[in-house]
Amino acid sequence: MRKDFGSKPWFYPMPVLVIGTYGDDGRADAMTAAWGGLYEADMVELCLSHSHKTFDNIIAHKAFTVSFADMAHLREADYVGLVSAHSEPDKLARAGLHTEKSAFVDAPVITEFPMALECELVKVTEDGNVIGRIVNISVDEAVLAGDGKPDAAKLKPISYDGVRNEYFVLGENVGSAFHDGAVLK
Amino acid sequence: MRKDFGSKPWFYPMPVLVIGTYGDDGRADAMTAAWGGLYEADMVELCLSHSHKTFDNIIAHKAFTVSFADMAHLREADYVGLVSAHSEPDKLARAGLHTEKSAFVDAPVITEFPMALECELVKVTEDGNVIGRIVNISVDEAVLAGDGKPDAAKLKPISYDGVRNEYFVLGENVGSAFHDGAVLK
Repeated sequence: MRKDFGSKPWFYPMPVLVIGTYGDDGRADAMTAAWGGLYEADMVELCLSHSHKTFDNIIAHKAFTVSFADMAHLREADYVGLVSAHSEPDKLARAGLHTEKSAFVDAPVITEFPMALECELVKVTEDGNVIGRIVNISVDEAVLAGDGKPDAAKLKPISYDGVRNEYFVLGENVGSAFHDGAVLK
Repeated sequence: MRKDFGSKPWFYPMPVLVIGTYGDDGRADAMTAAWGGLYEADMVELCLSHSHKTFDNIIAHKAFTVSFADMAHLREADYVGLVSAHSEPDKLARAGLHTEKSAFVDAPVITEFPMALECELVKVTEDGNVIGRIVNISVDEAVLAGDGKPDAAKLKPISYDGVRNEYFVLGENVGSAFHDGAVLK
């Protein structure tokens, strides 16, 4: 038996995206978002309330970074998602986070988060969503595998559960994609 | 030290979305997609190649379902993602999957997957992305918690790792969102 819930913003797994931007004063800011995903092979889509300082910053600087919140920095990611830069301008420092300017776009890379998409603004859609082009992905060597590529098992990205306001960590590797379909029958 | 990878379609965690549609002959079809996410509180965005039969079906029926691939049906999800309905019209049956017509939209609910968004087509964006309105979410009672809401720990959604073409299962609950930021300092 299935139970009907009507229309809900439920999606599994949802990401925990830490959006890094610069304010008008050049100060780095960050917020978290869970509504978004890949929009094209080289583009990301974000649904952000326009009341956020982050939205103004993206428009002004035409750039942002997207860090994937990881298990090692769950509390920091949660904090920057909870507190507004409108009320706490130094929220990054208060969370113990540090930034460096991206070499590719006019936005801060938060050095504690091991993996970041460095994006330039493509447009705001007619629905108000932010579309960014992924110009570069930078990854801390600590979460690379022996082959030099990112290793999800080392990154340990977290996921937001909108049903319960809870976080889950990505679990174990359960196999390669593109199995031989013949095994099914 | 961070390593630069340029532009890549890498995102953590990415979903494994099984898109259910009806073909012109009324036959149920399904494919998997990983590029997409929430677009609004009641809308989902999908980046699908227009060469897929699924795209034609969505346009014709103005509806689709999105099931979250779960650990118990990893191989079935992988199979429908691998095989094209153009070459295997009975791919759902071949994967051992069954469908019922959604009570809300003109699209099939795949009964084996415990959770599905039942969506009506809102539009195809100028970039070719599919935007759907979530009209209903139906969830199998087997993956509900005691409070009657979905339980991610029972659902065990899987995630697609585009870096390595591998799947990961969602892991453990690591805490409630909205911690008291005061603990940080």
